[in-house]
Amino acid sequence: MAKLYRDNPLRKIAWEDFHTLDAAEKGPFFLREGRPYHALNAQQFTRPILDGLCNLATQVRRIAKTRGGVLFLQDLLCEKRAMLYFAQPSTRTFLSFYAACQLLGLNPAEVRDTTTSSEIKGESPEDSIRTFSSFFDIIIMRHPAGGFAERIAWLLSNTDRPVPVVNAGSGKDQHPTQALLDIYTLQRSFEKREGIERKKIAFVGDLARGRTVRSLAWLLTLYPGVKQYFVAPPSLQIGPDILAALDRAGMAYELSSDLQAVIPEADAIYMTRIQDEWDTAHESRDVDTNRFHFRVADLARLRPDAVIMHPLPRRREIEPGVDGDPRAVYWRQVRNGMWIRAALILTLFEREREIERYYQDLTS
Amino acid sequence: MAKLYRDNPLRKIAWEDFHTLDAAEKGPFFLREGRPYHALNAQQFTRPILDGLCNLATQVRRIAKTRGGVLFLQDLLCEKRAMLYFAQPSTRTFLSFYAACQLLGLNPAEVRDTTTSSEIKGESPEDSIRTFSSFFDIIIMRHPAGGFAERIAWLLSNTDRPVPVVNAGSGKDQHPTQALLDIYTLQRSFEKREGIERKKIAFVGDLARGRTVRSLAWLLTLYPGVKQYFVAPPSLQIGPDILAALDRAGMAYELSSDLQAVIPEADAIYMTRIQDEWDTAHESRDVDTNRFHFRVADLARLRPDAVIMHPLPRRREIEPGVDGDPRAVYWRQVRNGMWIRAALILTLFEREREIERYYQDLTS
Amino acid sequence: MAKLYRDNPLRKIAWEDFHTLDAAEKGPFFLREGRPYHALNAQQFTRPILDGLCNLATQVRRIAKTRGGVLFLQDLLCEKRAMLYFAQPSTRTFLSFYAACQLLGLNPAEVRDTTTSSEIKGESPEDSIRTFSSFFDIIIMRHPAGGFAERIAWLLSNTDRPVPVVNAGSGKDQHPTQALLDIYTLQRSFEKREGIERKKIAFVGDLARGRTVRSLAWLLTLYPGVKQYFVAPPSLQIGPDILAALDRAGMAYELSSDLQAVIPEADAIYMTRIQDEWDTAHESRDVDTNRFHFRVADLARLRPDAVIMHPLPRRREIEPGVDGDPRAVYWRQVRNGMWIRAALILTLFEREREIERYYQDLTS
Repeated sequence: MAKLYRDNPLRKIAWEDFHTLDAAEKGPFFLREGRPYHALNAQQFTRPILDGLCNLATQVRRIAKTRGGVLFLQDLLCEKRAMLYFAQPSTRTFLSFYAACQLLGLNPAEVRDTTTSSEIKGESPEDSIRTFSSFFDIIIMRHPAGGFAERIAWLLSNTDRPVPVVNAGSGKDQHPTQALLDIYTLQRSFEKREGIERKKIAFVGDLARGRTVRSLAWLLTLYPGVKQYFVAPPSLQIGPDILAALDRAGMAYELSSDLQAVIPEADAIYMTRIQDEWDTAHESRDVDTNRFHFRVADLARLRPDAVIMHPLPRRREIEPGVDGDPRAVYWRQVRNGMWIRAALILTLFEREREIERYYQDLTS
Repeated sequence: MAKLYRDNPLRKIAWEDFHTLDAAEKGPFFLREGRPYHALNAQQFTRPILDGLCNLATQVRRIAKTRGGVLFLQDLLCEKRAMLYFAQPSTRTFLSFYAACQLLGLNPAEVRDTTTSSEIKGESPEDSIRTFSSFFDIIIMRHPAGGFAERIAWLLSNTDRPVPVVNAGSGKDQHPTQALLDIYTLQRSFEKREGIERKKIAFVGDLARGRTVRSLAWLLTLYPGVKQYFVAPPSLQIGPDILAALDRAGMAYELSSDLQAVIPEADAIYMTRIQDEWDTAHESRDVDTNRFHFRVADLARLRPDAVIMHPLPRRREIEPGVDGDPRAVYWRQVRNGMWIRAALILTLFEREREIERYYQDLTS
Repeated sequence: MAKLYRDNPLRKIAWEDFHTLDAAEKGPFFLREGRPYHALNAQQFTRPILDGLCNLATQVRRIAKTRGGVLFLQDLLCEKRAMLYFAQPSTRTFLSFYAACQLLGLNPAEVRDTTTSSEIKGESPEDSIRTFSSFFDIIIMRHPAGGFAERIAWLLSNTDRPVPVVNAGSGKDQHPTQALLDIYTLQRSFEKREGIERKKIAFVGDLARGRTVRSLAWLLTLYPGVKQYFVAPPSLQIGPDILAALDRAGMAYELSSDLQAVIPEADAIYMTRIQDEWDTAHESRDVDTNRFHFRVADLARLRPDAVIMHPLPRRREIEPGVDGDPRAVYWRQVRNGMWIRAALILTLFEREREIERYYQDLTS
């Protein structure tokens, strides 16, 4: 059942050399023969891979509309077992992955509270996860320490039983499947408007600390003609590293602290919440966030074909009265997470062809 | 896969108007076209629905006696996913629903400890559950707040992705599937004695606070000729609202504090424990509960065809020595919970006909 | 679906008489018609049963190498449900059993934190587990109290719905499936050297308290010619009861506190960690454990066909640099746990013949 041994770039580099690389340099190490083998950071996804994932997610979503289709999907990975290792609380990401596993027949097992593990007996976290991985064919992991998922992927790659590792969120660092679901939501939203290219995307709120925005802004450099607006209080504005990346990619962008001015321009408004759980020095305490809220009254000035997104959970950034507007796609965005994660898992196990064949039969 | 949109009464009423209705008035709002769509309170169940559920539970139970039958059952809902959201601890109710899901192939996912969810980030509970529900086809929920499951059912009914909600216990308020399993246990116990009608049912113990007894007493008004005995210390006697309901329905009943006098009369003795976890002013501290215990010595005076029930957990209300008597049906009562919950879930998904067809083939 | 009632020795003995028996005397009570019905202590396993389990584990392992084989295995017990009741934390044992269940299609349900159960309402633990067991066909349980799993097996045997009970670790007492996986690992390691018989097995570390070593030392008395070395600081040396058992069985053994002298002799070195979580009087605080560590430098003096084992988790007993040596089999040992547990569960449900038939077709 074990994957045939093939070219594995993580075996060819020492941890000391690897972990100091920047995210874009690390990307190729997560591939095998040009295909994603691990899913660890947003930077590893090329435009063809993104297009393939979005396409696959749509096929899975449509196949799942009939009982026969679900039975087909549930058969695909039913001989595999997945470990969902969530050392950091996150019910929504957990359930999204869990449901994606169930959809594909991939048998999930959960490790949630690591205080119930042998870590208390003085074992290293690496030993713990290597032990746990013995029973599974893929590891989906969330961990408070930045880079931990990469460390595990490197470690297992250097054993005789490597398995794919999916980063379901690591610290303030990376949450690549959130970026994928955002791309997929944008792609679906602009399906009839020639896709994401040349659209105006506004990010609003806490842009300094939201890993979601940082990853998505990076991925949008793969879509020519996109213009990005970063709408935030000055103290929570997007980091210069991202702007430098946009400059290098030749992407247009604008910094602003005036949401009202941006609303009529945007094709997509991506709202975020103030992440004060990361506060170390009350950075966000004195910020007047009211000016970065989206209200029912703002709907009138939004383009009729625009969309409002939010990674959720929200607090008061979006008035609940906005929820009923067809342009509010944040609940659909949640469900898109399940579809794109299913597509990603199928891709890691190289099962795209089976989906395509079934889908062609379905639509022919 | 989504249910075709049909008449949905919860879309036609504002929350403010709905939540002030009494339980009996709310009942019809949980139906669609006369069939249960949600399962939220005991009052929504009519006699034909109860008879249908009991009949279905027996068919499921008998079908499950063979491997072939279990395989048939596991195929029925295998394209669906259920969320078991248990914000309040309850292993036995949880496991009963979990096993019922497994029996029907319905893929379960568990949300147990809500401190692991994003609720800590300031999200409203409604947003949390709407998010979680995105991935599932039915929500089975237990919550400490009375009316919370109804709130969620109303909320989801007013989105474009409503799913059935099952109340697995809400505060001191409602626990409708416990009432269903009690009805099913009575019905099985009196199968050869023309059913529940005209039987004498005695409730013993803490009748003021046990939601179980309150719901069951209400449902028994649907069975003509039943006489109910309420045997309790005066401070823990059944509430006047229940007695008023019995009066309105023209049901016979008797209040008593003398268990010994009732034992020889009763067809069923329903024992309960003192629920001092709900004590706010030590109501139960000074009550002499010994007189409301059932002992081995009492068995001799019990009718040979009577049954002893208990919703469990018990403390000292029933001597363990009673367990071996064939009239002690409280362990079978537990297992009946699995069967009737399976029947309920099948009913919510409109799969009764498939069970009936299989059962007819089996017995013909 | 219930097992036909057959000879059940636990119905023929009172708890008071049973629980004072020693482990070897209890063994026969866990059998039915000479076959394991419960799996509760190491002493119940005879040599033919051990040989059968190892053989079955290897067949399962080889069958699982193809998708078709896994589908065959997943069909075997898919009509059954297992409760994994883990009142004591242990992620690795839990996951090993969970994965074994998934491999066989046996539907698992987890009860992890007993504070979420009704035990808090004053229910006896026996009542709790009897209630939970109502929904399941087998109980796999870990509990801090020695003898608790036996108590449950006795209790359920004396109801009208007995189910097999598997001890997944009880206090300092017994952890029989760990002993089974150790035997299976030794058997695999010496497959081409005529098996375990006549091998030299060295146990190193905390031998006084490790239930693992105690159980394995006992089981090795079933293999003629084995010589056991017990290498420990005097205060943590193996107990006289085990030595007495070895004497009775006529087995050779040697006590030592010099690991260096033993390394070149041994066919297997079984390393263990100092279990100071059981310390009541700082027994292990003043012990110099460095002399009982295995280091990279020791590999040169180890026989080329010897193996290094460890039940894990480890601390510093084995240098991580040793992990890459082909003689370090402790990671494979973990995975062996899944195979032997699957073999055990199949045996308790009497499904060995189906495995054998499939395996014969596969290899013929």
